[in-house]
Amino acid sequence: MPGRSGPRRRRAYASDARPARPVVTLTTDFGGTDSYVAEMKGVLLRECPSVAIVDVTHAVPPQDVLAGSIVLERAVRAFPPGTVHVAVVDPGVGTDRRLILTTFGSQIILCPDNGLITWLARREPDRIGFRELIWRPDTAPSPTFHGRDIMAPAAAAIARDARLVPRWAHSLGADEVTLLPIDVAPDNATTAEVIYVDHYGNAVTNLPGERSADLLTVRVGRRSVRVQRTYADVPVGRPVALIGSSGLLEIAVRNGNAARDLRLKVGSRIRLT
Amino acid sequence: MPGRSGPRRRRAYASDARPARPVVTLTTDFGGTDSYVAEMKGVLLRECPSVAIVDVTHAVPPQDVLAGSIVLERAVRAFPPGTVHVAVVDPGVGTDRRLILTTFGSQIILCPDNGLITWLARREPDRIGFRELIWRPDTAPSPTFHGRDIMAPAAAAIARDARLVPRWAHSLGADEVTLLPIDVAPDNATTAEVIYVDHYGNAVTNLPGERSADLLTVRVGRRSVRVQRTYADVPVGRPVALIGSSGLLEIAVRNGNAARDLRLKVGSRIRLT
Amino acid sequence: MPGRSGPRRRRAYASDARPARPVVTLTTDFGGTDSYVAEMKGVLLRECPSVAIVDVTHAVPPQDVLAGSIVLERAVRAFPPGTVHVAVVDPGVGTDRRLILTTFGSQIILCPDNGLITWLARREPDRIGFRELIWRPDTAPSPTFHGRDIMAPAAAAIARDARLVPRWAHSLGADEVTLLPIDVAPDNATTAEVIYVDHYGNAVTNLPGERSADLLTVRVGRRSVRVQRTYADVPVGRPVALIGSSGLLEIAVRNGNAARDLRLKVGSRIRLT
Repeated sequence: MPGRSGPRRRRAYASDARPARPVVTLTTDFGGTDSYVAEMKGVLLRECPSVAIVDVTHAVPPQDVLAGSIVLERAVRAFPPGTVHVAVVDPGVGTDRRLILTTFGSQIILCPDNGLITWLARREPDRIGFRELIWRPDTAPSPTFHGRDIMAPAAAAIARDARLVPRWAHSLGADEVTLLPIDVAPDNATTAEVIYVDHYGNAVTNLPGERSADLLTVRVGRRSVRVQRTYADVPVGRPVALIGSSGLLEIAVRNGNAARDLRLKVGSRIRLT
Repeated sequence: MPGRSGPRRRRAYASDARPARPVVTLTTDFGGTDSYVAEMKGVLLRECPSVAIVDVTHAVPPQDVLAGSIVLERAVRAFPPGTVHVAVVDPGVGTDRRLILTTFGSQIILCPDNGLITWLARREPDRIGFRELIWRPDTAPSPTFHGRDIMAPAAAAIARDARLVPRWAHSLGADEVTLLPIDVAPDNATTAEVIYVDHYGNAVTNLPGERSADLLTVRVGRRSVRVQRTYADVPVGRPVALIGSSGLLEIAVRNGNAARDLRLKVGSRIRLT
Repeated sequence: MPGRSGPRRRRAYASDARPARPVVTLTTDFGGTDSYVAEMKGVLLRECPSVAIVDVTHAVPPQDVLAGSIVLERAVRAFPPGTVHVAVVDPGVGTDRRLILTTFGSQIILCPDNGLITWLARREPDRIGFRELIWRPDTAPSPTFHGRDIMAPAAAAIARDARLVPRWAHSLGADEVTLLPIDVAPDNATTAEVIYVDHYGNAVTNLPGERSADLLTVRVGRRSVRVQRTYADVPVGRPVALIGSSGLLEIAVRNGNAARDLRLKVGSRIRLT
């Protein structure tokens, strides 16, 4: 009976991977003092009352697209299928810069086309696809707050029904999207680059963990630092290199602050010896 | 058939505007280090398990009722019908200052009667109504934490069932409510006043956008600043005046900090030329 | 008819005290800039889509187990039955330190065995029970992020079904658990100790309110401070001692900052006169 196969047929667009509950995350440089984040959440709840909203961070340094890009990539990996991520670090708001929609499995990332998607694109070039968000609201959006007036309502609608994606967003080629000039360290790299410093002062590099499996030590300035499994493998106050929870080589100081103690910042070079 | 008209009859109090899910927002000066915010949320979830709780901000400067008032007004506009907003900037906690309940359409704002409702009252005098919250819990509330012991349980109950409002809160006249001495700039104003400085250093004034439609420039100190549509209409580092996302005239510096660069703070005057 | 008694039979473990909706709280020293908190939330939503997640704080000073312990105890008291609290201040991550599961009524607290449970254990020794979390995920957890890879999935599963507790966690004696060397002031104490300073600069002591009922004044350094009911019982700028909203004696300055003005910090002594 042909009818019986009905429920097993795959639907048109990723909707069989919808989460049990719509989830939208927010990554911005809005800070914690103003109403801007809450205004986006009000819109999300208006358009999708059952949504679970998760703050990734609102403390991206103002207009620091690179930092936002790295935080966003990490967050995306931890979320369930169907999650919609909205990232707003947007110095070009109100200009004709595009809004892009990136697919990663059944997850979707909405952000301005200014490099915010860089780190996910660098680490997962074969698993992502790009689209331009062409949907716009019926009433004119504020020229200074597309996060509230375009991205939030679009994210809410898509979180509710991912089948809107092909109607609301047109395909883009990978070479049409703005990416920042950072990349994963190549296989034969002799140095890694610090791309992010976290709250604890841990300095995260662009070297994927699988490429550092054979490393015994690295050089940070004139200092030789052992590669270990975890912080506690060295005495308190001592530096250590390890594969952090994002799968990248990072430099830490046990119960201390590596960025401060070893003078590391974004762009610093670690020699792989 | 009389029975058919049943579902169309309006219910007693605003309950036909209830949101699909109860929503409660929080605006406080509690900061982010202590358990105070979470204690309010624990009470909200105990009394209304399905509630969606949204933080507007907990970084209102301690006891800065004016700043709280402005953040609150902005947030209220973005939320769906039926939302209950709780605002706690409350230097008079434990005294006999009233708790007030303000209605704005089907939204409800609960706060101490100390001026927190000022900016919403100034911008929407014809759309709001005031009541005094007379409900009190059965067990004595902590004299230092009415936010947790009175406002949170009241908000949760009202979010669940707005019909409690007339039973729990008595009508007040607009002249019985405490308002701060700030107001929207009048039609014939020759100056606007900075009432808020945001996270980016944008200086928001009390001049509604519709009254600045004909302005070409404003004067900030000795400087003439062009009125434009968005930040990107001027070069990086240059000042610009524009109608911000709250519908008020604001002074910004593209990719910079206007408050710092132009020495603007709450109370600064902008000449409308 | 035997069948009729079925629904009335008590179930095996605390499940009749399950909240109407699973609730998980988070107390960490992760700060607000990175993706770490969101990664835990992504895991929680993946494993328990209906969960309500509440941030207690992520601003515990890095690795300050004592401060985390006090914030956690306060938060626990405000939450509904069945809530699962996850606390991660964990300098020993990746070592063989235990993860413990503490029961408090039908609430459950998951944290490393490093003293985070101290203040709840000191204030409620007769109402808590300890277990060791022996459950581990099928795939190897990151040695630097047990919060995401062990504690979050365990918390989500237990929030969904508390009957997992006896299968996933073995009983521990109270003397097997790490506690910090602070305690509630004894009945005959002549001094109280500052154990926490909050966002407003209020200095919270270890003296339970019921033991300070007869106190008229306390001495802070050379200063005599009156014990009152609330902040507003003294003039603006004056110090006051009162029973705070946690039920402990605290020293405040009305509309001021007691820690700064009276030079109080954790460990300072208050004489009970």
